[in-house]
Amino acid sequence: MRAVSKIAALAALTGAAAVALAQAPQLPDAAATDPRTLGWMVGSPPPPDRVIRFADGSLYKFPQLRWSFSNMRQLVPTANASRGNGGFTPLPSAERNDLDAIEFTTMDGRTMTWAQSLPAVFTDGIVVLHRGRIVYERYFGVLEPLKPHIAMSVTKSFVGTLAAMLAAEGAIDPSAPVAKYLPEMRDTAYGDATVRQVMDMTVGVRYSENYADPNAEVFAYARAGGMLPTPPDYKGPRTFYDFLVTLQKEGNHGEAFAYKTVNTEVLAWILTRVTGRTLAQLTAERIWSKLGAEGDAFYTVDSIGTASGGGGLNTTLRDLARFGEMMRLGGAYNGQQIVPKAVVEDIQRGASREHFAKAGYKTLPGWSYRNMWWVTHNENGAYTARGIHGQVIWIDPKAEMVIARYASHPIASNPFNDPISLPAYAAMAKKLSGQ
Amino acid sequence: MRAVSKIAALAALTGAAAVALAQAPQLPDAAATDPRTLGWMVGSPPPPDRVIRFADGSLYKFPQLRWSFSNMRQLVPTANASRGNGGFTPLPSAERNDLDAIEFTTMDGRTMTWAQSLPAVFTDGIVVLHRGRIVYERYFGVLEPLKPHIAMSVTKSFVGTLAAMLAAEGAIDPSAPVAKYLPEMRDTAYGDATVRQVMDMTVGVRYSENYADPNAEVFAYARAGGMLPTPPDYKGPRTFYDFLVTLQKEGNHGEAFAYKTVNTEVLAWILTRVTGRTLAQLTAERIWSKLGAEGDAFYTVDSIGTASGGGGLNTTLRDLARFGEMMRLGGAYNGQQIVPKAVVEDIQRGASREHFAKAGYKTLPGWSYRNMWWVTHNENGAYTARGIHGQVIWIDPKAEMVIARYASHPIASNPFNDPISLPAYAAMAKKLSGQ
Repeated sequence: MRAVSKIAALAALTGAAAVALAQAPQLPDAAATDPRTLGWMVGSPPPPDRVIRFADGSLYKFPQLRWSFSNMRQLVPTANASRGNGGFTPLPSAERNDLDAIEFTTMDGRTMTWAQSLPAVFTDGIVVLHRGRIVYERYFGVLEPLKPHIAMSVTKSFVGTLAAMLAAEGAIDPSAPVAKYLPEMRDTAYGDATVRQVMDMTVGVRYSENYADPNAEVFAYARAGGMLPTPPDYKGPRTFYDFLVTLQKEGNHGEAFAYKTVNTEVLAWILTRVTGRTLAQLTAERIWSKLGAEGDAFYTVDSIGTASGGGGLNTTLRDLARFGEMMRLGGAYNGQQIVPKAVVEDIQRGASREHFAKAGYKTLPGWSYRNMWWVTHNENGAYTARGIHGQVIWIDPKAEMVIARYASHPIASNPFNDPISLPAYAAMAKKLSGQ
Repeated sequence: MRAVSKIAALAALTGAAAVALAQAPQLPDAAATDPRTLGWMVGSPPPPDRVIRFADGSLYKFPQLRWSFSNMRQLVPTANASRGNGGFTPLPSAERNDLDAIEFTTMDGRTMTWAQSLPAVFTDGIVVLHRGRIVYERYFGVLEPLKPHIAMSVTKSFVGTLAAMLAAEGAIDPSAPVAKYLPEMRDTAYGDATVRQVMDMTVGVRYSENYADPNAEVFAYARAGGMLPTPPDYKGPRTFYDFLVTLQKEGNHGEAFAYKTVNTEVLAWILTRVTGRTLAQLTAERIWSKLGAEGDAFYTVDSIGTASGGGGLNTTLRDLARFGEMMRLGGAYNGQQIVPKAVVEDIQRGASREHFAKAGYKTLPGWSYRNMWWVTHNENGAYTARGIHGQVIWIDPKAEMVIARYASHPIASNPFNDPISLPAYAAMAKKLSGQ
């Protein structure tokens, strides 16, 4: 679980991982690093040692990221996914006072309560829905109910769902080669990959997310996408597209799950090419405006306005829960069939567990990855959207439970919070099921 | 009216002015420069000659700015002013089909209809309210009802209103020196200026908005505020505050109206210092969340998240009209007294017309400037918020009319559209009054 190579392979998007790895597993204290307590970005101007900027990369340092994740749009350009101007879908409150005391055993054998688990994984906010009602809701640090937080790779599950919706309509053929839609990608790793292999991340592509390696492609990706500052003499790509066309093949396609963020950017590119809509527009038109969301969502964008499908979505916590609840209900929500039932069922069925096993995730035994969702194949049929630093949508169909969590864990890689998070979700499901 | 020095003095915020001045008054055609027709930023990626970026300054070039003004948030970082999550205040539709044919005479003697006036001033969208009902509403180019457009210096009237509200509560003393609230400004032009002089823009400060002069302070201001790209070797200020403390005195305070955007940034700084809230938070808490707005508003921000009070506000067109309607109704709107009636009346009364006359605006005879609003002192008691390239809120109390207009005129300076706009508003007021 503490294998550095695994963590590095999973880490994504932020330089925080590299910083955090050095100090793992001695974690700082959540209360001591609370961004409100520390006073980040308070004052006009804030004190020099409490300023967070994009240009110096401080937005991704810990504990600064505990503030940044709730304030991304004032750090980078963004594209809006409008909620429309209708009312929002109520999430009736049925808060229970018996949930904080839920006890569970962490993967490393410690006894912990639900209440203790929240600071242990640096939770910024968490909502638990049971049968569509809010049974638990907490906010910490600078997150507020109407303030969006970055979803990191939870974004990928939105892109995968949109792709599956378009496939269900016949607008995208998953068996077609990527180059059918993106001729620009013919001479890249994706030249002989199918759309399905992209959707399930079984593409053989040379792309490392190893933060310990200064030459890892993840840094070039992040700079190209406007997610990391560039040095004054920077001559590299300034857009996702210009970066993606440089990707070369490594290994074979269709043989093993290999989690690489660039797959989602390629998929997002296919969606925009096929529909003529931006990812933000597609998200708004197909999902967000139908969901009865409380707030607009938004994506971080590169220098030409291309949204990051790999990790750029920001939403309010309750809206993230609404999206999860819509999935739990088989795509029918707010009086509409938003996502076809067959698409939800296909995600729930998952993909090849053998392919997944090859990736070696010790905290995720027997799982698979389908349409950019993580599928547990547990007895409750749970599936989940996951993003670095602890972002999550957890959907437990049998327990009729949805958990949406935003977090700012000092370590990007989720295997560092899984040993607490996964048993906590299971215990909550059990409690809500009356067991 | 065509005096270049006047135009330069009025121009603000964008490099477009310099470009546009060279070609004035031979204006391009509005239909031929329609951003939708030209296909700016369409495609994934857009064709190279249809890309608009922040870094190369193309966002402010004409005709690119016709797209940029409706897409600011994907070009620069922004701070949200939330509408809250309640319903929006209806603007009942009572559209009339007899308004396009309204005829009027331009200041330079041409006969023109209302319908002809819209492309003549490069209108992106316009709403006319009569007694609170929408009697006319049109969108052009890429502006849409739920899409925000930059308000440019219309922003100033929001800041001035907020300041007047805080003064009415006693939280700010207009007669106090600026340095009472901002000790940092003691050794600047503002060291011996009063808050009132800032609110009414009668401060003697060396600050040129002359775009023909490459050493004009407006460029340094825009770079410091993140509104213009900086060269790789840039060593200047990176925040509004760092720029404002460099401003030196020129002339006397309190003797003449001198329209300088930095005054509003100083006023916004005072507001944030006094309240401990950001300008976006203040706008949301004091105005936007009470207005029943249809969409969130947002401000463009500098590298440390400081909103541009001088010109950074973006709103939907209807929400801009709602703000105008609230002012027309003496601050009472959506079931609440949002702005104290005395504040609205103070604005309507205006300030010294003698001070204003010294600024020499040929299109604005007999006007004054109060709390960052332009006051016509005409027979209808009209007052207005104005921003470069044709942004406007026009409030005509006697005609019970509010006009909100977003535009992308090739020439920044409003005296280039006033000869059409001002007679058009007067004709509309007359028509709606049944005269």
